[in-house]
Amino acid sequence: MCDWVKNFTFVPSNLHFMEKIKQLQQDFADFMAQRDFNGQPTELYEPIAYTILQSGKRLRPMLCLLANEMFGGDEQQALWPALALETFHNFTLIHDDIMDKAPMRRGMPTVYQKWNSDIAILSGDAMLAMAFQFALKPQKGAELAQQLGRVAIEICEGQQMDLNFETLKKVSIEDYLEMIRLKTAVLLATALQMGATVAGAKETDIQHLYNFGINIGISFQLQDDILDLYSDVATFGKRHGGDIADNKKTYLYLKALELASENDRKRLEHLFTLRMDHDEEEKIEEVQAIYDRLKVKEASEQVMLDYDRKALAELDAIDLPEERKIHLKTYAELLSGRKK
Amino acid sequence: MCDWVKNFTFVPSNLHFMEKIKQLQQDFADFMAQRDFNGQPTELYEPIAYTILQSGKRLRPMLCLLANEMFGGDEQQALWPALALETFHNFTLIHDDIMDKAPMRRGMPTVYQKWNSDIAILSGDAMLAMAFQFALKPQKGAELAQQLGRVAIEICEGQQMDLNFETLKKVSIEDYLEMIRLKTAVLLATALQMGATVAGAKETDIQHLYNFGINIGISFQLQDDILDLYSDVATFGKRHGGDIADNKKTYLYLKALELASENDRKRLEHLFTLRMDHDEEEKIEEVQAIYDRLKVKEASEQVMLDYDRKALAELDAIDLPEERKIHLKTYAELLSGRKK
Repeated sequence: MCDWVKNFTFVPSNLHFMEKIKQLQQDFADFMAQRDFNGQPTELYEPIAYTILQSGKRLRPMLCLLANEMFGGDEQQALWPALALETFHNFTLIHDDIMDKAPMRRGMPTVYQKWNSDIAILSGDAMLAMAFQFALKPQKGAELAQQLGRVAIEICEGQQMDLNFETLKKVSIEDYLEMIRLKTAVLLATALQMGATVAGAKETDIQHLYNFGINIGISFQLQDDILDLYSDVATFGKRHGGDIADNKKTYLYLKALELASENDRKRLEHLFTLRMDHDEEEKIEEVQAIYDRLKVKEASEQVMLDYDRKALAELDAIDLPEERKIHLKTYAELLSGRKK
Repeated sequence: MCDWVKNFTFVPSNLHFMEKIKQLQQDFADFMAQRDFNGQPTELYEPIAYTILQSGKRLRPMLCLLANEMFGGDEQQALWPALALETFHNFTLIHDDIMDKAPMRRGMPTVYQKWNSDIAILSGDAMLAMAFQFALKPQKGAELAQQLGRVAIEICEGQQMDLNFETLKKVSIEDYLEMIRLKTAVLLATALQMGATVAGAKETDIQHLYNFGINIGISFQLQDDILDLYSDVATFGKRHGGDIADNKKTYLYLKALELASENDRKRLEHLFTLRMDHDEEEKIEEVQAIYDRLKVKEASEQVMLDYDRKALAELDAIDLPEERKIHLKTYAELLSGRKK
């Protein structure tokens, strides 16, 4: 089980929920163990097994299974889109790591580092195709595959926007929010949508659930931006201020530019052109001092809360008794409560 | 229209066939023109439009449309899998060109050269997802998408085998044939299968047609290997002996190794370690002299004929009157007759 679930506070009311999550995670692990990710040539299949069998959070499968359960669907059917989502997500990681030149992922060398870029491109391609094969297996397979196809294209758009932002001088907050919607939120929303679809939920409910996913997804990413700078490094598991060191145009940075005086803005823009040869710690400290003065953390948290509120309103609008929604609601709270 | 169709000899019995091919090519071009390959961000979509709107042979769409017509299917339905196949094929070209470091394709700079590798990876990914979206559109969409998923995985396997062969010292003829089956033949076979599927053909007939495609596909690739060395360069449009210059382990080379004396084998193996710094023309000439002495061209043509015969037997086995099969048969003959 992943760390943030382990760290979740056990209070009696959470007990049943925790057992449910544990059980779904186990069911998904068992289902994956029955699949054979080996094949010939081994150069193609080893990176696939290496990536997909690493223990990730299985966040997207969990959302799919919880959504399916919420609408009283058959778990055996929902395990297929859950697997499709996890396979798809891992494909995006393999290809993104090539583009981001990321040496490590989940504490292990990335595929393009351990093997090479050609193998990383090809294994990723094969995983994308496999994801469709999995999505097509259960009832309503054609619909599920269509949902996967749409989200796959959106995620490519989001990744391309993100790549563009690296070299763009001006990025608007609106464009940034659209980028994280495409790069992060749509897949969480689609995970919920697929779970509800395979369960046979009605169209309006599926749409509310999808919108719930979009809103928690954007909130989730905004929180990631905050945690990168304002968190206990040991718990969060990433280096402190990594986004600033990498000159990443996050919500904090864009909000700071918006709120800054002419002088602060110029200084921030200058600091975000410096590369590694500069003293990293000093740079992070100076940027953080500006952020603090401008209260951009508080501004970001405010926006996060707005998205959380919108998410809950969508969940409320679903035509089901409250007790049906409790697991998914608790899971979403757990996600947005991690490591604050 | 592509060159080899233009060069096809017009005799009265071919007239109706040529009109049919022209009409299908026009229908496909019109259908593509109705699709919108533009979108945001432009960095993602421009390479897609650039690649897919280049005039290729449209070989896979033609096979799909001819197969559909053979079984009396509705052309409007079959245009979707035809588009899926062409989009998919172009995705493989974009990614293969990165791996092969190919600077040009169809007389134009390749995507990774014109833009960059990141953009080539991402546009390719988006095209793969689009191909599934297209395959899912018509009747029997789930089946078509499954066929596309299977062939996509096989093609990744074939490409990986091909990459492996570059550094492997020994490649068996059996492995080579398996590689070209996966890299080339399965997509032609799937094009026919998709056309027959959307037309509602019966299972046994679809299987025969698929096998026909596998056999003409392998024959087609063997012919490509021969033409690379034994053809009029001006007509074939590639540099003469390019495979030898690149040390590609083709059927000719592997057959030569099998038939060669100890001395010839050692000499061939040595020549196939030389890189560009060596005199290219001299090397090609020497290799060709060995091939000629061992009669590997004739041996290859014999194997090609075997595959052609097997292909025809599969076509014969299809439960349809002969006149229904004539267009596809003529098209296959046209393909295998090109530039001899």
